[in-house]
Amino acid sequence: MSGWLAIAGLGPGAAELVTPEVTQALAQATDLIGYAPYVARVPERVGLTRHGSDNREELDRARLALHLAAEGRRVIVVSSGDPGVFAMAAAVFEAVDCGDPSWRNLDIRVLPGISAMFAAAARAGAPLGHDFCAINLSDNLKPWDLIERRLRLAAQAGFVIALYNPSSQARHWQLGAALECLRRHLPPTTPTVFGRAVGRADETIAVTTLQSADASAADMATLIIIGSAETRLVPRPGHAPLVYTPRSALA
Amino acid sequence: MSGWLAIAGLGPGAAELVTPEVTQALAQATDLIGYAPYVARVPERVGLTRHGSDNREELDRARLALHLAAEGRRVIVVSSGDPGVFAMAAAVFEAVDCGDPSWRNLDIRVLPGISAMFAAAARAGAPLGHDFCAINLSDNLKPWDLIERRLRLAAQAGFVIALYNPSSQARHWQLGAALECLRRHLPPTTPTVFGRAVGRADETIAVTTLQSADASAADMATLIIIGSAETRLVPRPGHAPLVYTPRSALA
Repeated sequence: MSGWLAIAGLGPGAAELVTPEVTQALAQATDLIGYAPYVARVPERVGLTRHGSDNREELDRARLALHLAAEGRRVIVVSSGDPGVFAMAAAVFEAVDCGDPSWRNLDIRVLPGISAMFAAAARAGAPLGHDFCAINLSDNLKPWDLIERRLRLAAQAGFVIALYNPSSQARHWQLGAALECLRRHLPPTTPTVFGRAVGRADETIAVTTLQSADASAADMATLIIIGSAETRLVPRPGHAPLVYTPRSALA
Repeated sequence: MSGWLAIAGLGPGAAELVTPEVTQALAQATDLIGYAPYVARVPERVGLTRHGSDNREELDRARLALHLAAEGRRVIVVSSGDPGVFAMAAAVFEAVDCGDPSWRNLDIRVLPGISAMFAAAARAGAPLGHDFCAINLSDNLKPWDLIERRLRLAAQAGFVIALYNPSSQARHWQLGAALECLRRHLPPTTPTVFGRAVGRADETIAVTTLQSADASAADMATLIIIGSAETRLVPRPGHAPLVYTPRSALA
């Protein structure tokens, strides 16, 4: 019995952005667990049992993974992007914290991945070039007031702001409210990037301004980057402008 | 003449954390440019000219890369971690912005990598499990007052805080001042992680509290994560505690 649990990031979608560490763990695992669309990214293989689940069942999924690892299985839980960013790693450790004390002795590893904000930033230029923050716009697990407070303080701090989970079928108004909040604290011309399905066949990158940003253009697969007051555009003939935030900053 | 310029992230140090996309670009390049210790990570190869340079010469390095790509060379600029996070991508686009207008027509791509905060977080558990920010503690290119202001606002926002470049041979007092600043706004028991040389042979991960954090324990290779008021520890027999920040948050 030498079970283990690896919590792995598959990156934004392209196979060439999956680290060799994750590929190796996938090859050794006996059980694959995750939100069904992420499980579907991993090729089927004899000896690998697949446990796809719905999006809202993170804690159940975490407990299943821990049970199987405790039974001696080699279990890999997959997330999109990095597993430590608004993904499964926190859910697994929450389950360990509140669960069977013997789970604390399990061999649990987190295998990092390329998070969506870095993939989107890379396509746009270098918008995260200086101090930045990442905010999850979902108010399923925290009050909206806290999200607005973080947006306001982030704008006052001059952080570039990456917005995860801006919209979903069940959450329609949150991104519009977030943009309204940011417009009260940042210049209307602040460069804004909508990156959708980055690294996948249907990828789109749109560069706009905070004033013109259209909340209805985002969905679950969209990552939004709001620049700081220092973020600049470099126009290019025949292409979208490059977006970058200089390394230097004034007061 | 079909030159290109790729700005690539080598990740924190381990070969199994270099993406296949970067490995492929390294295999096709004619010229390798970067801070000498990062250039040294790439194996020598016939047909690949190496241009290592000092740490402080980012803009010169960027201009050299653009000149060579404009001459038709296949150029790869390497950074540790992700090239868009306190690294070479912003320097290259700054050089494009201020340089020869023909550089805007070049084929320039950014190839993301695993940033130090995700590698350190993965080793500690899931400390970045909720909203977080990344702050560069170097005051070489921005005033210290701005850094203190960002630390204060980040603490007030309840962000988990990743501190990059906490210390160097030329910068001794900054991390101590940053910890003092954070102690005025966060509980003394706030979990704090010092990750050093993560993914390399001499890796160390130390879990402490904000009150007990010792600035002299950090150097250039250290990445520091300061939890939020919600970050928790899971004690484990015979191991360092797991550190995670729950996905849910109260007001």
